[in-house]
Amino acid sequence: MLHSKLIHPESIVVVGGSDNIHSPGGRVLKNLIDHEFKGKLFAVNPKQELVQGVKSYNIINDIPEVDLAIIAIPAKYVLETVKVLSQQKNTKGFIIFSAGFSEKDEAGAKLESEIVKLINEKGGSLLGPNNIGLINKYYTGVFTTPIPQLDDHGVDFISGSGATAVFIIEAAQSMGLTFSSIYSVGNSAQIGVEEILEYLDHSFENESGSKVKLLYIESIKDPLKLLKHTASLIRKGCKIAAIKAGSSEAGNRAASSHTGAIANSDVFVDTLFKKAGIIRCYGRNELITVAAILQQKDSEGKNIAIITHAGGPAVMLTDVLSRNGLKIPHLKGKESEALLSGLFEGSSVSNPIDFLATGNAQQLSDIIDYCENCPEIDAMAVIFGSPGLTAVDDVYEVLNAKIRTSQKPIYAILPSVVNVKNEIREFIKKGNIAFHDEVLFGNALTKVYNHTLIGDETKDPDFPFFENIRKLVDALPDGYMPTETAITLLEYAGLNFATPYHIENKEELNKISKSVTYPVVLKVEGPLHKSDVGGVILNISNETVLYDSFNKLMKIEGAVGVIIQPMMKGMELFIGAKKETNYPHVILCGLGGIFVEVLKDISAAMIPVSEDEAFNMVTDLKAYPILKGVRGQAGINIRLFAETIVKISDLLTVVPEIAEIDLNPLMATEKDLIAVDVRIRLEK
Amino acid sequence: MLHSKLIHPESIVVVGGSDNIHSPGGRVLKNLIDHEFKGKLFAVNPKQELVQGVKSYNIINDIPEVDLAIIAIPAKYVLETVKVLSQQKNTKGFIIFSAGFSEKDEAGAKLESEIVKLINEKGGSLLGPNNIGLINKYYTGVFTTPIPQLDDHGVDFISGSGATAVFIIEAAQSMGLTFSSIYSVGNSAQIGVEEILEYLDHSFENESGSKVKLLYIESIKDPLKLLKHTASLIRKGCKIAAIKAGSSEAGNRAASSHTGAIANSDVFVDTLFKKAGIIRCYGRNELITVAAILQQKDSEGKNIAIITHAGGPAVMLTDVLSRNGLKIPHLKGKESEALLSGLFEGSSVSNPIDFLATGNAQQLSDIIDYCENCPEIDAMAVIFGSPGLTAVDDVYEVLNAKIRTSQKPIYAILPSVVNVKNEIREFIKKGNIAFHDEVLFGNALTKVYNHTLIGDETKDPDFPFFENIRKLVDALPDGYMPTETAITLLEYAGLNFATPYHIENKEELNKISKSVTYPVVLKVEGPLHKSDVGGVILNISNETVLYDSFNKLMKIEGAVGVIIQPMMKGMELFIGAKKETNYPHVILCGLGGIFVEVLKDISAAMIPVSEDEAFNMVTDLKAYPILKGVRGQAGINIRLFAETIVKISDLLTVVPEIAEIDLNPLMATEKDLIAVDVRIRLEK
Repeated sequence: MLHSKLIHPESIVVVGGSDNIHSPGGRVLKNLIDHEFKGKLFAVNPKQELVQGVKSYNIINDIPEVDLAIIAIPAKYVLETVKVLSQQKNTKGFIIFSAGFSEKDEAGAKLESEIVKLINEKGGSLLGPNNIGLINKYYTGVFTTPIPQLDDHGVDFISGSGATAVFIIEAAQSMGLTFSSIYSVGNSAQIGVEEILEYLDHSFENESGSKVKLLYIESIKDPLKLLKHTASLIRKGCKIAAIKAGSSEAGNRAASSHTGAIANSDVFVDTLFKKAGIIRCYGRNELITVAAILQQKDSEGKNIAIITHAGGPAVMLTDVLSRNGLKIPHLKGKESEALLSGLFEGSSVSNPIDFLATGNAQQLSDIIDYCENCPEIDAMAVIFGSPGLTAVDDVYEVLNAKIRTSQKPIYAILPSVVNVKNEIREFIKKGNIAFHDEVLFGNALTKVYNHTLIGDETKDPDFPFFENIRKLVDALPDGYMPTETAITLLEYAGLNFATPYHIENKEELNKISKSVTYPVVLKVEGPLHKSDVGGVILNISNETVLYDSFNKLMKIEGAVGVIIQPMMKGMELFIGAKKETNYPHVILCGLGGIFVEVLKDISAAMIPVSEDEAFNMVTDLKAYPILKGVRGQAGINIRLFAETIVKISDLLTVVPEIAEIDLNPLMATEKDLIAVDVRIRLEK
Repeated sequence: MLHSKLIHPESIVVVGGSDNIHSPGGRVLKNLIDHEFKGKLFAVNPKQELVQGVKSYNIINDIPEVDLAIIAIPAKYVLETVKVLSQQKNTKGFIIFSAGFSEKDEAGAKLESEIVKLINEKGGSLLGPNNIGLINKYYTGVFTTPIPQLDDHGVDFISGSGATAVFIIEAAQSMGLTFSSIYSVGNSAQIGVEEILEYLDHSFENESGSKVKLLYIESIKDPLKLLKHTASLIRKGCKIAAIKAGSSEAGNRAASSHTGAIANSDVFVDTLFKKAGIIRCYGRNELITVAAILQQKDSEGKNIAIITHAGGPAVMLTDVLSRNGLKIPHLKGKESEALLSGLFEGSSVSNPIDFLATGNAQQLSDIIDYCENCPEIDAMAVIFGSPGLTAVDDVYEVLNAKIRTSQKPIYAILPSVVNVKNEIREFIKKGNIAFHDEVLFGNALTKVYNHTLIGDETKDPDFPFFENIRKLVDALPDGYMPTETAITLLEYAGLNFATPYHIENKEELNKISKSVTYPVVLKVEGPLHKSDVGGVILNISNETVLYDSFNKLMKIEGAVGVIIQPMMKGMELFIGAKKETNYPHVILCGLGGIFVEVLKDISAAMIPVSEDEAFNMVTDLKAYPILKGVRGQAGINIRLFAETIVKISDLLTVVPEIAEIDLNPLMATEKDLIAVDVRIRLEK
């Protein structure tokens, strides 16, 4: 947990504070002074007794006790400084701007870990090194500009990159997005994004405080911790949007099965975010636009009224919203006619509601009142710019007032960033958000409105054969399981398997050939990719063909035997799962054959997968209509497919050592779902 | 064609000119004066002899002859004014700001057409009514602000919406995009987007002048004219980006075939743009970002060097570019090591080239020189902001200089819109473009770099049976063709058809049953959707089943006979085409069955379709790997598929009366492509 003195220090020393505001030490001091830090403030500067009007000590040993140290000196001096502060000055909060640590080389990494050790010994908290600092309502401990508008209900923002944090703050300014706190974690030597989320989770207060969290992440060190606290915050009513930059190339490594080839790191991030309920963004503009939408009132539904004084932007906004599943309901009836009668000739109220270039403040007020009372409308997007002829202050004042009184969210799209720049600035100063491009807004709006939270309903797996499973797995070495063992494992987990017989020679075939029910299928054992070597023979309908096929398969290089199975009919499905260091398993499902190989039509979810999640995985498939049955073709039992996914999820919870599982194919009909082939690889 | 006096008037009268710069008449006069119109300028104002220092006449009849009239008076006075100007004052150019014409009601439409008639009689040109006017290097004939930076090499911009034009100009300003001319067409009473394109096409000068055209269109009145002139401009070396707002709902109307249901108006716009070579955009920010990229040097390829002083934005840009098919080549070797040695410790040159927060102007200069000489790099994206500590003037000056001297395009991404606002403004003032969000830039860059032009290689169809085809079609009524006739038509067009026999009774069946090669397929004739009524029986392997099947089909309601065809093997394909008023046909193709019905995996192109275009249609299909053959499954003859598409395109050129054609399925193997069923609807 973060020490309270890092968050709310009563005294701060800037080590390396100077009069040069173009240096980090000088600038952070200026920021602290300019933004009126309420506690005691002093500096350490080898040459001066006063810097920027603040008392300065020449050596660290001379300073009094201090809650928080902001350190902006060369890396080589940092360890000694931290030692004095931590051991002699009762300092618990540390922010280290200095670079030259683990991001640089081995020696830097060693130095960094020694610093962390010192701070840990005394239970202190360290932000950095190599970061831009921290801003909250108590102090502005950053060496950068601009310092954004702070507001208890602004967003909490955690950034894995200092410069990116600055650029995000800059971009947010023109939109009016305000912040509650900003954390730059730098090298995350002790405190990373996960630890700050933990702090925000534990310190969350429902009534007051920020409800929107933004993350910029480049690497996730502890996915489970991130999941735990983001999910917890979201359950408490927060909303979280995040950029995870850097799609890993690890996914491109040679993989030993289809599932392996499909699941790359980005799938882990996607499914992790989905499980937590995080809205994933890909750029700065998108992140702050999403945040600005999240900052406003919640909408009850997806029905949007577009209110405009200019046709073009309204048409483009209608296009983007309806293309992405939001509704622009056609409005008609008595109330709508009454509204129309109060507008200028040529106006339209059918939605978009266009009250023309000459439309005025009173008309906008009437339109918003109408939408506020219209049960078919859940939210309003008001587009109002200016071609430069007339003032718009009165219109923006109506918007400002209505945003406060309306029960429904009202989004202000103010495109005239040149003509009414000052009026937009005034509008923002009053605590409002102004969007500038209707299509960028529309894309973000659909992202927010289409975001769904997954219920938190996974049950602990209740396996009757838990003991058997563990015993079986514990006895096995790493690597691919023998097929029979894998089948036994699946049967313990509650799956149906097409009963296979393992045959190694003609004598064993003789024993079985009379009793099987034709048609059957023969598969070679030994080679990894059976189909590629012609190792699968389908639809064997009599004994003669059976013996011919057996002989043929045994001649394949590497063949150690064959498996004989009843020939299953139905639709080919697959279920697979994959693991990546530190992450829970990701389960994948889809239709087999070309659907997975060519069309990459795959759904994914992170375990534990609940029945609802599994059902969503299936309905999310592009090929879902085929599973339901199209054009007279029978569909499959979808509930059974979902249940099987949950069973595999449960199995993985009990046997986390499964590095890879590949059920391909499963044969599904309207009644049954039967696994035909399986490969499981253990990695203990 | 546009009259030269509309473009380059030597005298202008503002009818309704006044001292009130908050009125259109007053503001346009101010704009003309402020931006130093070089010719004679005067006004008509009933009450004043001087407005804004310009001579004013009280009545229109008193003015001298004048080239261009800008009319900003109530609609009811416009006709009389135009009459005097046109008939007595030799006025050839007209811009009418006034609203209250065809956009309002029937009476307004009538008035508008009378005005057009008057102007046409004297060979004049009319822009508007209900528009914001025209800006070019000769005059600023708009009543709006801001007046953008004008530049002979800026973009030519035609807008179907006045307010949208203003908002686009405003958004362009912060990026530094300059304009050569701006046309707002308003109601397009006489001059629409198409006519201005025609003018730009005919007046295009290769050496001087603007090469980038932007369009904002809400409706395309004359698609062929638009196609002709955009394609011609693009052949001359221009680049065109356009927004077509307002996806039509007409496509949702009940359609009588699959093809009908798929092809909606937006497909016509898409294929029209593709044929012309227009880059389609969907929002203002996207349009100007694309335009800003088009304004810069052309790149030889898709290999981008990302040069940055901040990690985050470079990672996000790498993500978006590589996700969309651009390359960020990994750089190594002796030159790259030499470059690294000149950078600060911790820098990286492997691409992204990260020269750290402390990186300076000289280092940027060295990096750009390295990339300029590196054969693996085609273009550079330089990201450089500021956390607020140090000045960046010297860095931006290096960028400014290198952009001018480099043979490769250099894109400047300057994210610090607050911290170095003034430096960015200076950079733009020097004629540069500054992008602000790396991901919005990246999306636009991939749109531009992935845009391919279709060669202009369609040949006129050379049908040996042209006469036969015309004779056959001329003799037919509107509606669905009889199947046999449709087959004959296809055979004339050069397609192979699975020879069908039409049978109406048992006697006819007796005649044929001995001679057919089994298996065969039987299809009912009469009902429109054969499969839905169980009217298709496949795989009939002997005479007994043949007779049973015949009896069964003849009992279906509406059955008038059956068709017997050889049972074709292979992959099911489809080719279809659809028409929309004023547009050429759009051809669609894909795999049959679930691929078209469930996965909507369809390619489209506007006729005439060349062989290259047809080949692209096929390779664009998501299911293309299946056509090539996957996992031991044989593929089809793709060249034959493309040739068949071209044959259908040729047929449609010869028989434009075909409102709908649906070849579904065609059966394809590695050797053959044979049509099995066809429906053709004529609409003369």
